[in-house]
Amino acid sequence: MVPPWLHTATQKRQLRDAAIQRFIHVHGALPAVASSAIDDVDDILAAVSSGTVTTTELCTAYINRLTEILFDDALAKARELDRFYEEHGRLVGPLHGVPMTLKDQFDVKGYDSTLGYVGRAFKPASRDCVIVAMLQRMGAVIIAKSNLPQSIMWCETDNPLWGLTVHPKNPDFTPGGSSGGEGALLALQGSVVGWGTDIGGSIRIPSHMLGLYGLKPSSTRLPYHGVSVSTDGQEHVPSVVGPMSRNVDSLVAVTKAIIEARPYEEDPKSCPLPWRGEVFADVQSRPLVIAVMRDDGVVKLHPPVARVLETVLSKLAKAGHEIVPWLPGTLHQECIDIFDQYYTADGGEDIRRDVAAGGEPFIPHVEALVNKGKPISVYAYWQLNKQKLSAQKRFLDLWSSTKSPESGKRMDILLAPVMPHSAVPHRKCRWVGYTKVFNVVDYPSVALPAGLVSKELDAGASEAMAEYEPRNALDEWNKSVFGLDAMDGMPIGVQVIAQRLEEEKVLGAAKVVDKVLRET
Amino acid sequence: MVPPWLHTATQKRQLRDAAIQRFIHVHGALPAVASSAIDDVDDILAAVSSGTVTTTELCTAYINRLTEILFDDALAKARELDRFYEEHGRLVGPLHGVPMTLKDQFDVKGYDSTLGYVGRAFKPASRDCVIVAMLQRMGAVIIAKSNLPQSIMWCETDNPLWGLTVHPKNPDFTPGGSSGGEGALLALQGSVVGWGTDIGGSIRIPSHMLGLYGLKPSSTRLPYHGVSVSTDGQEHVPSVVGPMSRNVDSLVAVTKAIIEARPYEEDPKSCPLPWRGEVFADVQSRPLVIAVMRDDGVVKLHPPVARVLETVLSKLAKAGHEIVPWLPGTLHQECIDIFDQYYTADGGEDIRRDVAAGGEPFIPHVEALVNKGKPISVYAYWQLNKQKLSAQKRFLDLWSSTKSPESGKRMDILLAPVMPHSAVPHRKCRWVGYTKVFNVVDYPSVALPAGLVSKELDAGASEAMAEYEPRNALDEWNKSVFGLDAMDGMPIGVQVIAQRLEEEKVLGAAKVVDKVLRET
Repeated sequence: MVPPWLHTATQKRQLRDAAIQRFIHVHGALPAVASSAIDDVDDILAAVSSGTVTTTELCTAYINRLTEILFDDALAKARELDRFYEEHGRLVGPLHGVPMTLKDQFDVKGYDSTLGYVGRAFKPASRDCVIVAMLQRMGAVIIAKSNLPQSIMWCETDNPLWGLTVHPKNPDFTPGGSSGGEGALLALQGSVVGWGTDIGGSIRIPSHMLGLYGLKPSSTRLPYHGVSVSTDGQEHVPSVVGPMSRNVDSLVAVTKAIIEARPYEEDPKSCPLPWRGEVFADVQSRPLVIAVMRDDGVVKLHPPVARVLETVLSKLAKAGHEIVPWLPGTLHQECIDIFDQYYTADGGEDIRRDVAAGGEPFIPHVEALVNKGKPISVYAYWQLNKQKLSAQKRFLDLWSSTKSPESGKRMDILLAPVMPHSAVPHRKCRWVGYTKVFNVVDYPSVALPAGLVSKELDAGASEAMAEYEPRNALDEWNKSVFGLDAMDGMPIGVQVIAQRLEEEKVLGAAKVVDKVLRET
Repeated sequence: MVPPWLHTATQKRQLRDAAIQRFIHVHGALPAVASSAIDDVDDILAAVSSGTVTTTELCTAYINRLTEILFDDALAKARELDRFYEEHGRLVGPLHGVPMTLKDQFDVKGYDSTLGYVGRAFKPASRDCVIVAMLQRMGAVIIAKSNLPQSIMWCETDNPLWGLTVHPKNPDFTPGGSSGGEGALLALQGSVVGWGTDIGGSIRIPSHMLGLYGLKPSSTRLPYHGVSVSTDGQEHVPSVVGPMSRNVDSLVAVTKAIIEARPYEEDPKSCPLPWRGEVFADVQSRPLVIAVMRDDGVVKLHPPVARVLETVLSKLAKAGHEIVPWLPGTLHQECIDIFDQYYTADGGEDIRRDVAAGGEPFIPHVEALVNKGKPISVYAYWQLNKQKLSAQKRFLDLWSSTKSPESGKRMDILLAPVMPHSAVPHRKCRWVGYTKVFNVVDYPSVALPAGLVSKELDAGASEAMAEYEPRNALDEWNKSVFGLDAMDGMPIGVQVIAQRLEEEKVLGAAKVVDKVLRET
């Protein structure tokens, strides 16, 4: 007999497939306009403004490559935008006609926000979340929602409702997670801007594994209100929303557009900090002091990841930037230990309830998570907050005191790997220490593509790994997942990090790094 | 036999008295410069700059009226400032020579932060909290710390360690709390700027009862780092630090000085929002739309409080401002219900531990608080956060949609009473619903003096109260504490409220209201 949860999942998948089929039947094959030629938000605005392409054509080109179902609404919206443009001869707003997709957490009126839970299927949202409402008002066209892991709390993308999301370059590999559906869509050019969330690396990890750009902002900079999330109410290491794209300028365009549209007028948590163009310009106008983290002391980088990082550093140095070491001692590890206690402070009750509501099976990683610890008391939870604040203070003081020995100038940004490895086979992701430390301190980070695993450039890597003595069980696991042949060609990213609420600075610095990488 | 806690308390009080005695012995009586003539931060800077008074003279004038003991450090600092001025012919910073006092929560290296607990006596802080370090760098002279209730969580000021703080106009009356020591000092001209904290009204309530100005800012605007607090780690309805003074310009001067000194470089929670002079100026330059809350539906205002509020409104209307009603329905009550659950989410464990550490007796109100409820689970705590966020969103939406029916303009500020009554006898304060709702939504509020209870102006109030039918037990209690003769001459304040992180707007609007009140 088919269990009820599987019946729900099957129904949901059939509806999706039917919606795609119907759409392909009605609209036919991909039109002449190739989405790959129009990757950038600014390109789209220019193309529509000049009349080279209509929003309807553009939208059709994108949704033919997708797996989800807001197509009718998207086309209706696109036609409305075209009518507006025809009538008024101007764009409706700074995101006019830009096709976007959303991780399946962002509430869109009339559609489910499943979070990968069977029990949340067929429970459509009663209203748009704040960011979706803002995007729509600015002219964005939401064409689909995308896959994520059961409970969201994992750095891969699998759930009993929608199934497994795979890496576009190799179906045996994970695209990462938890914004892995969004990442895979973007890598397949199924969207221009994808919206993910990040509480421990969930935007940056798929960006790294798929060769994409992703911004994890500080909390309160972009509006989270109305976005569904698991362990909702856990606000001390907050999940944040952020954009993913195939170029850095798209990240800048959408971040700036939202900040300038005053999210704090609709989201009670949003910070009324305007977009600071002068900070964005300044960081691009001068030599920077760049601190670098080469090793977190827990899991050593695979040789290709280390090689790519060194290449980035030498190009930056050649371009006149100063490189200084980032020396956190045990502080990162402390941040991570604190962080891990927040996830499970409720003893897994939140996730257990959602899984039970659908009667679905646990995916193994999530099951391990909810069984990790007993619930703690609110008093103990308050003590944990005090530990967190103390770690944040030491992090801030370390940043302030990290200076160039030559110029004496304070560090501008931190450069770090995203993961110790490139994409790995399904269920092999374990260590997200390189990303989640920045969630604990709530600093903005941009992941950007910096290179590829290469059998030629990484010749000798297999021998080096074979000889390497792991430091601990995690490091040993990381050694075991290395495989040069299977990884060949997989993307490798780096993180650029700035201080809390310095989104302008981190995006400007990401442009600097990106330019150095693309030009040299 | 004397219990050990009383021994500690006696020792602490004797040391304080000895320090004061020694000081009076060495420095003699109050010098000619009267502190009452120099009430304002700007006046002090002008007087010192012009050479009319030295910082040492000024400091001596203030500490003769005090009850606490940083005198030696204060005078050393004052002499240092005088030397600096002599040598360089300029002020050391924007708060050069301004005497300040601190509620006994602000960590000052080498001194206790007792929070009114015996168990925290003789445990000096190992470092200055961020705001104290900033104030000192800008030239402020910290002369004393002041009393607060055991646990801080009460709107009066009493504890077994230091004893009861009384109202300067009538020792049978409370000065309010929890920043009641600071309030009484300021009312007695024992300080120019007092620093308090506010989690439910603790800056605004003593300001109201004592005829003072007090700013409760939004959280993250002024640095809290290193300030000791009970229920530390409870960050969802955060306690905030704020200034109290005898004039609005001093509030502006110190708030601006701190914000411009970039607290976010030292406090990991502080928001990097600059001081927005244009917002401060704008709100003073035009007719405002002022919403008014006349009654919270729970406890009706005493007739003198209602009369003073109406006087303020009619003066504002006469000055050209539009008055519109604030109609929250049950939303305030909902906010308060949520709020009350945070205080006791740990089942009182935090306060119990501190009281037990000193072996001291509970003061009755604090005992009632810790016995109010059982601890809740972290999962339930997360659900509470979701409720809070939902209430905050509805508050924001109500604010955005409250408009003048005439001009159609959105409301600028909210005007509200601070308490339903003026100062009352000790242990008679119960209802802080008029203040704490703004802690739940985290909106800045300035309490400012608006009038006095007056036997002449309030003739007929006793009869009206006698006939009044209370709505509920709290309202009945409020009826019972009214007494026109005893209250005659007691100050009455009003609150001016702006939206989250709009400190510039709330201070500018407070200047508008203050001006209207003083001029007409």
